Amino acid sequence: MGADIRVPRVPGCAHRYTRMVSDEQILDLTQSSADITRQLCNIESVSGNETRLADAIETAMTGYGHLEIIRDGDCVVARTNLGRAQRVIIAGHIDTVPVNNNLPVRAESVEGDDYLWGRGTVDMKAGVAVQLKLACELVSPTVDITWIWYDHEEVAAHLNGLGRLAANRPDLFQGDFAILGEPSNAGIEGGCNGNVRVELRTRGVQSHSARSWVGENAIHKVGQIVSTLAEYTPRQVEVDGLVYREGLNAVGITGGIAGNVIPDECMVHVNYRFAPNRTADEAIEHLRELFPAAELTVVDRAEGARPGLDAPLALDFVAAVGREPQPKYGWTDVARFSQMGIPAVNYGPGDPLKAHADDERVSIADIRECERGLRDWLLG
Amino acid sequence: MGADIRVPRVPGCAHRYTRMVSDEQILDLTQSSADITRQLCNIESVSGNETRLADAIETAMTGYGHLEIIRDGDCVVARTNLGRAQRVIIAGHIDTVPVNNNLPVRAESVEGDDYLWGRGTVDMKAGVAVQLKLACELVSPTVDITWIWYDHEEVAAHLNGLGRLAANRPDLFQGDFAILGEPSNAGIEGGCNGNVRVELRTRGVQSHSARSWVGENAIHKVGQIVSTLAEYTPRQVEVDGLVYREGLNAVGITGGIAGNVIPDECMVHVNYRFAPNRTADEAIEHLRELFPAAELTVVDRAEGARPGLDAPLALDFVAAVGREPQPKYGWTDVARFSQMGIPAVNYGPGDPLKAHADDERVSIADIRECERGLRDWLLG
Repeated sequence: MGADIRVPRVPGCAHRYTRMVSDEQILDLTQSSADITRQLCNIESVSGNETRLADAIETAMTGYGHLEIIRDGDCVVARTNLGRAQRVIIAGHIDTVPVNNNLPVRAESVEGDDYLWGRGTVDMKAGVAVQLKLACELVSPTVDITWIWYDHEEVAAHLNGLGRLAANRPDLFQGDFAILGEPSNAGIEGGCNGNVRVELRTRGVQSHSARSWVGENAIHKVGQIVSTLAEYTPRQVEVDGLVYREGLNAVGITGGIAGNVIPDECMVHVNYRFAPNRTADEAIEHLRELFPAAELTVVDRAEGARPGLDAPLALDFVAAVGREPQPKYGWTDVARFSQMGIPAVNYGPGDPLKAHADDERVSIADIRECERGLRDWLLG
Repeated sequence: MGADIRVPRVPGCAHRYTRMVSDEQILDLTQSSADITRQLCNIESVSGNETRLADAIETAMTGYGHLEIIRDGDCVVARTNLGRAQRVIIAGHIDTVPVNNNLPVRAESVEGDDYLWGRGTVDMKAGVAVQLKLACELVSPTVDITWIWYDHEEVAAHLNGLGRLAANRPDLFQGDFAILGEPSNAGIEGGCNGNVRVELRTRGVQSHSARSWVGENAIHKVGQIVSTLAEYTPRQVEVDGLVYREGLNAVGITGGIAGNVIPDECMVHVNYRFAPNRTADEAIEHLRELFPAAELTVVDRAEGARPGLDAPLALDFVAAVGREPQPKYGWTDVARFSQMGIPAVNYGPGDPLKAHADDERVSIADIRECERGLRDWLLG
């Protein structure tokens, strides 16, 4: 807390006034980032239901003179216009996967460490809490900042709020570097693997199973596909100094018509997570080579992102965080920034392995560490 | 047509009278067996909806002095009590699989042969038509006959009308030989293969597909099961002079949770049709030996039936039909008779490969030939 910290102009009582006439939720950003995390999580915002939380964020942000507020659907943008030489985009999604009896948030202590337990704590309201707190406190950062809190990240790519904003307001995506608050154990995770999903189909000829020799069993033909998957050794690829670990997996298999019918079709749904030195086209070509006998249909494709750690701002950020950067395995929206030519990294509290888990929980130490790292860097 | 043929006592006009007060359907059994087939088919009787047809059969049968009529649910029994030395059971189911725009029946000519096209023509209203016609015409057969027309054959075994009748009226299942009118191209098909279905499961550990090395992919483990199925050479087994062809097939496969999750379970649904020299227990044991690594759950089991062609009545029947008997591959209710100690064969018009087909159709020559074969035998 220092000269850069400003007390919010909108006091709590003003909020209480509006509360009388609507079910508007109140965010108190003067609390600690851990407490803000709890507030954010307890405003349930499963994808498609982000409006109340977006409203609360917009209301809480309004009144800070150093911030210009822009609203697009359930996405809230707050940016400084200080005329700095460089601009950084710092973003986080405000939606979560479905709640599963894991709200409201509760405090937990595990082996002496304090946690906030509940849906969204890791993915990624703790990251958003840190960003909201710093957005209002950092009145005079060393760079201009465009803060983006967006909707619909946990669902189909075409609904993604960051993608929509990029289409509606490309002017907001001017920046020299971007940070996405996805959980990364409060360390920097650079880039991300790419992601393609394909359906591999085998065909046969239907018949009654009592006279199976009349037909041709499509399920019996997936043996080669499954064996190839089981025997495949995923690559570990160094890209810009970080080692990316790939994965090639069946994530679904389906075939069969009835208990007495020889099936004429079987489908294996395959997910390939590939290192960011390979394009999605190259990844798909690799799958065609691995499974030459199958019909291949691409059902999803997303490019990876190189780490982006050679940007000057990134080097400063790495120094401020003070820990060795790691590769990001999962696909995140850093790939969108990467495709727009903006180097981007993931940096947020929480263990990614706890994202979407029913026992999702974030370490309070992680939240504090993230706030410290970002603050130190943004204050120079 | 000869001395054994009796003109029905119930004339058409009597039926017309009842028609005024109900939606009762009229069966005219004085017509040819092909025409009776058409009448039977046009009274739709998908499993569970047999009442109208059972009523029509009961009404048409009532009034023949040589027949005792018994009704059990939608099953109609008609039997002679002539004090003959031997008794034969002749049975057919009156239900069909669902209609699929293939009613009403129409006449078709294919490569010069005349057919009746439509649901039920093959499976098995043509067989029932022959039986109904002979039931009322054969006043003085050489053996006593128990005719059984029953419901619910095309659905789960526990609903089967023949099974229900055997439980309710075991006294009706006294017989030296049984004929089931299932389609057999107007030849004798002896016995039937047994039938078991099992679910084979593999297990793994769920994880996010971006970090697949944390999990264990259950789909990747079905490779051994599928390869074993693909490489398996089904037996061809001679039983009582007939060669039974077996079949071992995946009839379903399912696994997967979401496009980004490593699945922790995969299930292969396997159908084993086995020759009647093997019991269902032995068949299941064979599957356990083939798939030692999988969890095996038995979901259906039905014993096969030996051909039963060494019975003296069977030898006479084979001579009357005048064609070499063949094995029956599909499971039929002959197995129920076999288990009750009554030798039983399948004998009916129509190609079994057209049963349940959308272009189901029966050759009129087959219907006539079946009527001739049964009549010749029953008149000695």
